[in-house]
Amino acid sequence: MKAGILAVGTELLMGQTVNTNASELSRALAECGVGVYYHYTVGDNEERMAEHLKALMRTCDLVVTTGGLGPTQDDITKEVLAKVLGVEMVLDAASLTHVKARFKKFNRTMPKSNIRQAYFPEGAIVLENAMGTAPACLVEADECTVVVLPGPPREMRYVLETHLVPYLKAKTAQQMYSKYLSIYDMGESTVEEKLMTYIESQTDPTLATYAGDGKVLLRVTASSGDYDENVASVEAMVACVKERIGAYVVSDSGASLQAVLIEKLRAKGQTIAFAESCTGGKIAASLIENSGASDVVHSGVVSYSNDAKIRFLDVSEGLLSQCGAVSPEVCKAMVEGILKATGATVGVAVTGIAGPGGGSEEKPVGLVYIGVGTAERIEVSEHRLYGDRVQIQDRVVVRALKQVYDTLV
Amino acid sequence: MKAGILAVGTELLMGQTVNTNASELSRALAECGVGVYYHYTVGDNEERMAEHLKALMRTCDLVVTTGGLGPTQDDITKEVLAKVLGVEMVLDAASLTHVKARFKKFNRTMPKSNIRQAYFPEGAIVLENAMGTAPACLVEADECTVVVLPGPPREMRYVLETHLVPYLKAKTAQQMYSKYLSIYDMGESTVEEKLMTYIESQTDPTLATYAGDGKVLLRVTASSGDYDENVASVEAMVACVKERIGAYVVSDSGASLQAVLIEKLRAKGQTIAFAESCTGGKIAASLIENSGASDVVHSGVVSYSNDAKIRFLDVSEGLLSQCGAVSPEVCKAMVEGILKATGATVGVAVTGIAGPGGGSEEKPVGLVYIGVGTAERIEVSEHRLYGDRVQIQDRVVVRALKQVYDTLV
Repeated sequence: MKAGILAVGTELLMGQTVNTNASELSRALAECGVGVYYHYTVGDNEERMAEHLKALMRTCDLVVTTGGLGPTQDDITKEVLAKVLGVEMVLDAASLTHVKARFKKFNRTMPKSNIRQAYFPEGAIVLENAMGTAPACLVEADECTVVVLPGPPREMRYVLETHLVPYLKAKTAQQMYSKYLSIYDMGESTVEEKLMTYIESQTDPTLATYAGDGKVLLRVTASSGDYDENVASVEAMVACVKERIGAYVVSDSGASLQAVLIEKLRAKGQTIAFAESCTGGKIAASLIENSGASDVVHSGVVSYSNDAKIRFLDVSEGLLSQCGAVSPEVCKAMVEGILKATGATVGVAVTGIAGPGGGSEEKPVGLVYIGVGTAERIEVSEHRLYGDRVQIQDRVVVRALKQVYDTLV
Repeated sequence: MKAGILAVGTELLMGQTVNTNASELSRALAECGVGVYYHYTVGDNEERMAEHLKALMRTCDLVVTTGGLGPTQDDITKEVLAKVLGVEMVLDAASLTHVKARFKKFNRTMPKSNIRQAYFPEGAIVLENAMGTAPACLVEADECTVVVLPGPPREMRYVLETHLVPYLKAKTAQQMYSKYLSIYDMGESTVEEKLMTYIESQTDPTLATYAGDGKVLLRVTASSGDYDENVASVEAMVACVKERIGAYVVSDSGASLQAVLIEKLRAKGQTIAFAESCTGGKIAASLIENSGASDVVHSGVVSYSNDAKIRFLDVSEGLLSQCGAVSPEVCKAMVEGILKATGATVGVAVTGIAGPGGGSEEKPVGLVYIGVGTAERIEVSEHRLYGDRVQIQDRVVVRALKQVYDTLV
């Protein structure tokens, strides 16, 4: 099934609102085995709306519109659809009751303009919307089903999950199976290069990569067989992928490195503490964003100044002046210091130059030392990273957590 | 001038990536007096890309594409544009040097596939991209200018701001004048409500709000007069706005609260240190993301466990067991502790329940105490926040920094 999404709203074209509906809908449709081929956005303009609706209806089996269901003058999506279909707008009594009831519930008087929200193209199936006054609808036209959803994301999501997803799942009798591998510390282009022979064949299962938040997500999907066959061929492909880049795959359920690490630390009864210089607390914060963190994170020190390294981590002044704050020696001393100060079983320290200032010939911007230590041993690694300040910091976060992960494996 | 935006990338259609480029571009084009009429997204598919490029070129004066400039097989935007224009792809020597230099800078070997990034449609003006290996380009065709931008938002933004905006401003001979007020600790809808009488009149100057990263940015733009008249009417409107919500405006050049705070601390010769519990280091990290931070940030402690509060901040065990870690008393003790431990002139402490677990009837999820202290006084404020764990953390970051800002004013 081939689908297109038409977002309606001048606020989208003005850039005041980001079209998160399109991505949310796309993910939900993909889950139902529906491939999305087009995202269009037009303003609250009858002619352009009609033109794009027609274009999508010509090429797609399913068209989903968002927006333009409100009570105001410029909300005209249903009316435009009726014109395109050549049908009348008719009153749906149940919807009128719903709209009236919603106003009553919040003790407000219903403006007359809201009556329009209870009118639909003749033949439409009305989809109730418990989140707002605008009911949605679905029209099964000759060769194409058109679904009209509200624009506010909360309302869109409700109608999508309550009505559209069950409708599509029944229709497509989904057999597709996917697995998501979380890959860290390897760039998207390197992942593609390593897996090129698999990606290029692109038969079934298919492989696709998505990069973001320091992670490369590799989706492996099979859809040509029955469900059990799809599961088997995905698992076989996942095994092939892991043979090539297994050291970089931290999860095959799409979980983040942070979540995986918390689980691993918990399972081993370990606690962790951080001594962060150039990352300023980002490593600790990225773990503590996850709700299980309190079981395993002891604490952290943002030892951004030399003074803090001395006071909190007991790094000696002599070592700092002899080797400099950005050195493997100080990094090791920071690990020792945080382990001793906290009693955590795993200690992590980073020191480096995030830039844009502070670099030198000998110690350029992007030079970072990461130390990970346990009672048994401390390992310090040297990194030369590129990018601006925030990029360098974010890369160090991933490298440091990956180094902890490798230590715990 | 009438524009359309064509985003290229299967990851957008799969819903893995939200098309923030479209809204960012739309806002920037609006600034230049260019109206955006269409957003299209298609996958990495030659036929559909060509079809939509042609459609936009027929109806628009300006077409901006994003994405598909990478080194991999499916990055074909420039090639498709060349075909649509009926021209060859030619090597740009300067771009090849740039790509090679970038790899050399980071001590990496350039894969052969990256050579493609230095080829452009004949006649294109190359737009350098200091943020990545993919230079962008601009082609002035007969009736339409086509601009090809990279997909990664950071790179897109760089080329947009460095090359496209100046190009368009020169072209439209823009007399427009804008000012951007950075508003913190007041939600977008409240800002709109407070300024409704101004927003609704919407003559000239116009007011528009954009929310993101804990900030509401209010744009005040005048365009109907000559340049001096526009400046005068914007300044008059800014004065009116500040009369209503001045306490929440931290900058009228669009600067972030973090950047403003660093400047303020530096100007007053102050240093700052943090004791963070539920925010896990995020407050320190959000300051340290800014390059001037090292002048004013002493250090931080992520006192995520009671043990850390005792060891690093000298909070007494008795106080912790008597009042609980999430209490104004412990918050105050944390401020005292961080001031004493670091010698910084400003101390900040937060303790709270970010959820989803850990809440109770008496101390529900979202209860947070923020303390800000100097040598003269310590003030602790109580907050009851809503949202998920990350939202609550991010709100605390803004509230805490705003409290520091208010203390320093």
